[in-house]
Amino acid sequence: MEELTGEQVAQLHREHVMQPWHKQGGDVTAISKADGIYFWDYAGKRYADMSSLLVCSNLGHELPEIVDAIKAQADRMCFMSPAYATEPKSRLAEKLVEVAGADFYQRVFFTNGGADANENAIKMARMVTGRAKILSCYRSYHGATYAASNASGDWRRFAAETGGSLPGFVHFMNANMYENGYTRGVDDAEVTADYLQRLEEQLQYEGPTSVAAIILESVVGANGVILPPKGYLEGIRALCDKYGILMICDEVMSGFARTGKMFAWQNFDIQPDMFSFAKGVTCGYVPLGGVVVSKAISDYFCDNVLQCGLTYSGHTLACAAGVATMDYYAEHDVCAHVLEMEAILKPYLESMQAKHRCVGEARCIGLFAALTIVKNKETRELMSPYHDAHSVMPTIMGKLMEKGFATFGRESNINICPPLTITEEQLREELPKLDEVLTWVDENLCN
Amino acid sequence: MEELTGEQVAQLHREHVMQPWHKQGGDVTAISKADGIYFWDYAGKRYADMSSLLVCSNLGHELPEIVDAIKAQADRMCFMSPAYATEPKSRLAEKLVEVAGADFYQRVFFTNGGADANENAIKMARMVTGRAKILSCYRSYHGATYAASNASGDWRRFAAETGGSLPGFVHFMNANMYENGYTRGVDDAEVTADYLQRLEEQLQYEGPTSVAAIILESVVGANGVILPPKGYLEGIRALCDKYGILMICDEVMSGFARTGKMFAWQNFDIQPDMFSFAKGVTCGYVPLGGVVVSKAISDYFCDNVLQCGLTYSGHTLACAAGVATMDYYAEHDVCAHVLEMEAILKPYLESMQAKHRCVGEARCIGLFAALTIVKNKETRELMSPYHDAHSVMPTIMGKLMEKGFATFGRESNINICPPLTITEEQLREELPKLDEVLTWVDENLCN
Repeated sequence: MEELTGEQVAQLHREHVMQPWHKQGGDVTAISKADGIYFWDYAGKRYADMSSLLVCSNLGHELPEIVDAIKAQADRMCFMSPAYATEPKSRLAEKLVEVAGADFYQRVFFTNGGADANENAIKMARMVTGRAKILSCYRSYHGATYAASNASGDWRRFAAETGGSLPGFVHFMNANMYENGYTRGVDDAEVTADYLQRLEEQLQYEGPTSVAAIILESVVGANGVILPPKGYLEGIRALCDKYGILMICDEVMSGFARTGKMFAWQNFDIQPDMFSFAKGVTCGYVPLGGVVVSKAISDYFCDNVLQCGLTYSGHTLACAAGVATMDYYAEHDVCAHVLEMEAILKPYLESMQAKHRCVGEARCIGLFAALTIVKNKETRELMSPYHDAHSVMPTIMGKLMEKGFATFGRESNINICPPLTITEEQLREELPKLDEVLTWVDENLCN
Repeated sequence: MEELTGEQVAQLHREHVMQPWHKQGGDVTAISKADGIYFWDYAGKRYADMSSLLVCSNLGHELPEIVDAIKAQADRMCFMSPAYATEPKSRLAEKLVEVAGADFYQRVFFTNGGADANENAIKMARMVTGRAKILSCYRSYHGATYAASNASGDWRRFAAETGGSLPGFVHFMNANMYENGYTRGVDDAEVTADYLQRLEEQLQYEGPTSVAAIILESVVGANGVILPPKGYLEGIRALCDKYGILMICDEVMSGFARTGKMFAWQNFDIQPDMFSFAKGVTCGYVPLGGVVVSKAISDYFCDNVLQCGLTYSGHTLACAAGVATMDYYAEHDVCAHVLEMEAILKPYLESMQAKHRCVGEARCIGLFAALTIVKNKETRELMSPYHDAHSVMPTIMGKLMEKGFATFGRESNINICPPLTITEEQLREELPKLDEVLTWVDENLCN
């Protein structure tokens, strides 16, 4: 088969591919190859993948260990249906439970990605508790299928609410300290107490015995790496225990060593009853997601039929990629490397906050980081009002992209979430590009 | 890495994998390899895959052309995010539009599987029409995420209705001729007129201008290969046109040469506004699904933002598998082979209906076939009442499995949907096993 040119690839895309979250037919860059933390367009321009694509390529691109596992499994058996046991599925389930903690967790329900992981976690919570309501955060994103989208907080939810929100989905306000006028490391106790008190009050009005689960990202991802104030997740866990509510952590973005722990909830003194995962489990090489559940939930479904399913649950090729990925995290102690790189990235981003008028706040845990970009540092006026069609943020992202620093952000945030395999040298090569663009923003877009 | 034994694979599965639609911890068969129409357990027992697993392995297992494409793409680039164009995604979108008919269809939205394909088709229909209601059939299955499940008709929907059905989902009764007392080929005109008249009446009561779409399987799959009576789908198309309702065909099971046409709707004189697909697009080798949309819908989303998205939309490795799969269908004229095999399978199943007391009806289009198993042929009493926890059907499936004839069925149906690459010799080797089990059913389970 003759290879297409970059222009042909782009042209076919403009004509025939539906591009998520965009108007169709616009400009698109065709990518020809990827390796490590980089990918290249057809003109040979190199981009550093400073967001791990959509925070999924945790081990970078084309890692030989994962590629080889895919090829070996492809030669043996690409797919066997969920009714049968296969070695990759059995092995991966065991590894996930082990890393989560086999004292508390028991089983894995496999899905294709993060959205259906959350869909199934929600359905399981309702089955186990016999309750209907699902509480979730306004500052959140859980996927775009109907239930995952209705649980989400950001405006990508709106399209899934046409004709009415889904029954039982209730939102509460989670803390976004900077945007709410607080200072991290200073006001945590006050904010935690305040937001937990408001949540408990809301629970009273909703009727706590009708609430099946509280679902939340261990660290809020797409909405700007919003770090929970100290004690907040522990407080959520306590509320759940008090009212018999299940706690579901969404680890789709934050999981798999991203924060320096295998799962982000392990940074806190909690164990969720279930947690969803995707992305980093295979680094996106083959689509895979799922839910890890506690022994108690597993026990319930030993006595009751699990009313969940999908054709590709426990997909053989995907699980083989997952096994290789999990082995790499363990054998190379990726968490330790992440903490070493955090020791470079975090102070650098804090220096950007100190240096630039446009940087309201820098947040960083592991290699999960974001900057909040502001028009005015004193008033904390965000660079772009919420859900603004005329946001200048795409211009800023475009300037970074021009310099070969590829990332994404939502609202007034710039995410910096490179592959966890990034080296100190690579970090130090890329970060000055960010500095340059922030200087341009200071000079051109700040009040 | 040392290979596990079959018993180890099964044991880890029983301990740590959540098995869809079952109580957990039960017996499971571990599968060690698959090739062509067969797969093998660890004891070396061979099974003929007479259902193409879940009607997805259309070209059988380990087809070298697909395996090689996966390995070649894995070496180049496993995944690039939806924001960028890649050759496999561009090529596959073009091929799908071409096979669907480039005169009417324009674009493809890619998903991970069939459920999220239907979720996104529903969301798009609501965006395009500005209407909320989605009409679907009681005899249907569209997936298990919340919207797909609420659109589904069979009882797997119930768990997704906890706390209330989703707003706007309305079901109507589609014809199931045998179970409703009719005879196919005799009563079609009467049934079609009757069911369309009832549907139009229901539309009046729902308010046709509030209906965004009617979604239905071109040929109902999991619920027993229910063939639409002659003229029925054309009548649905006419009702949609009359009231400005979009017609969505679900081709997840029925697509990709399964019926002897590339898409099952091509057997009828219709063009749906959108159709969802999954399974056969890659034969399940890598998870992939999507929606093909008309030029009119594509045009709408050139002017309006598409509020749909997922991390793995247009997954690179999956699309590469899809390109190889589509090429194989075309280059080997799989549709022609399917019609040749239909000429063997269909008369054979009809002879089973004539021969066996337990076979109420045989239905077959292409290599998409099912038998309705009855207790009593005269009264048409089904072998198992609807949604019966004590159904004897699993016993019948187990007898087939013992003979190495692997398939599945729901309610009182046995599905026979082998890989489309099955040869005449292979068909003639397997079908007598079915005959033997039906004889056992006649003697042991019929009135």
